[in-house]
Amino acid sequence: MRRTTVADEIKKLILTRELKPGDLLPTETELCETLDVSRSSVREAIRTLSTLDIVDVRHGHGTYVGAMSLDPMVEALVFRGVLSPDGSLAALREVVDVRLALDLAMADNIVDGAIDDDSDELSALVDDMVDKASRGEMFLEADRAFHTKLFAVTGNRLAAQLVGAFWDIHTAVIPQLGITVPADIQRTAEAHGDMLASALRGDVEGYRRAVVEHYKPLQRAISARRNEQ
Amino acid sequence: MRRTTVADEIKKLILTRELKPGDLLPTETELCETLDVSRSSVREAIRTLSTLDIVDVRHGHGTYVGAMSLDPMVEALVFRGVLSPDGSLAALREVVDVRLALDLAMADNIVDGAIDDDSDELSALVDDMVDKASRGEMFLEADRAFHTKLFAVTGNRLAAQLVGAFWDIHTAVIPQLGITVPADIQRTAEAHGDMLASALRGDVEGYRRAVVEHYKPLQRAISARRNEQ
Repeated sequence: MRRTTVADEIKKLILTRELKPGDLLPTETELCETLDVSRSSVREAIRTLSTLDIVDVRHGHGTYVGAMSLDPMVEALVFRGVLSPDGSLAALREVVDVRLALDLAMADNIVDGAIDDDSDELSALVDDMVDKASRGEMFLEADRAFHTKLFAVTGNRLAAQLVGAFWDIHTAVIPQLGITVPADIQRTAEAHGDMLASALRGDVEGYRRAVVEHYKPLQRAISARRNEQ
Repeated sequence: MRRTTVADEIKKLILTRELKPGDLLPTETELCETLDVSRSSVREAIRTLSTLDIVDVRHGHGTYVGAMSLDPMVEALVFRGVLSPDGSLAALREVVDVRLALDLAMADNIVDGAIDDDSDELSALVDDMVDKASRGEMFLEADRAFHTKLFAVTGNRLAAQLVGAFWDIHTAVIPQLGITVPADIQRTAEAHGDMLASALRGDVEGYRRAVVEHYKPLQRAISARRNEQ
C-alpha cells in the first residue's frame, strides 16, 4: 500500500468514526491492525497528515485530529516569497492586493455584523497602534488582532482564516525585504480608527475609504523599495 | 537535529544556492554530507517538504524544487469540508462567498487587463459551457479554465492560485453533498458569456452584475440542500 493511500485510509477512518478536530486518534498499534499495514507506513502517513495540519501529534500524549488550518499554505507561500529579493517584493504586493480585495469585499458583512460587542477591545487595539506609531514603532500584533477580530464577525471562517494567513505571510516577508517603518505609519494606525468608527456608524463607504487609506503607507514603502532595486 | 530543523536547513540551502522551482536538488547523499545529518533525517525532511509542495520528488529522476502551490491548503480544506455533512455545506458556502468576493474585488484589474488576446479561447469555453448546460450536463472543467484564465490577466499570481484552489475545493466538495445539477444551470453558463462581453467592452459594473448572477443558481442549490437537512 502506498503512503498516500494509508494517509487516505486514516482520513476515511476519521470520517467514518465521525471524529472532530481535537478528538484523539486510535493508537499507532490500533491503526496498524485496523488498516492492516506496517508500523512504518502508519508513521509515514501520520507525518504527512501532520504536515498538512490534518492530525496533531502531541508527543507523549497521542495523536489528535488537527485544526486543518491554513498553516501549510502559509509555510509554502512564505518560502516562495523569500525565494528571491525581487520575488519577495512581488509576492508581498500580491498579498497586499489580495488582502485589500478581501477587506473591500467583506465590507458589507463587517459593517452589518455585530461588532458593537467587540468595540471596546477593537478601540483599545487602535489606541495601542496609534501609541506605538507615535513612537516610531511597528505594531504588528495589534494590527493582526484588529483585522482577525473584525473578520470574525463575518461568520465566514474561511475568510477569517485567510486574513490571518496573509497576515502571517506579510509579517514573515517584510523583515526579509529591508522595508523600514514607513514615515507615515501613523496614518495606517489612525486609519484603523476610521475603519472602526465607520463600521460602528454603519457607513460602508466610509469603511471602504478607510481600508484603502490604511494600506497606502505600506504600498508606498513597497514602491520605494522597488525603485531602489 | 529535529525533523523541522533539517527541513529548514534544506530550505536555506535552496535559498543560498538560488535554486528556483523546477531546479534539481542535491542528491540525498550530498544533502547528508552538506548538512551533516543521517539519511533518515534527510528522507523525513524531504517528505515533509514534498507534502508542502516545496520540493517535488520524481521517482527515478531525483528531487526538484517544487511549485509551492496551494495544493496543501486545498487538501486540508477539502477534508475539513467533508468532515460532516453539515460542515460541508457551511464550508461550500464560505468558499462561494470568498470566490464571489475575489471576483468582485478583481473586477477592475480584469476589465482593464489585456484579455483581448485570450478572447477567442474564453469565448470557446463559454460556448462549451452553454452547450453542456443545454444538455443538462455539468461543465466543471471549462468553468475552472474560464476563471483561471480570466484571473491570469490580473498579473496577481496569488489571486489566480487562490481562485484555482477554491475551485478545487468546490469541485471536491460538491459531489459529497448530493447537490444535483441546478435546473437553472443554463443561467450560470450564459452569465459567463456576459462576464466576458462586459470585460471586453470595458464595463466594470456590467462585469460585476454578471459575476453576481453567475453564482445565483449554485447559491440557490446550496440553500435548497440546507433546507432539506
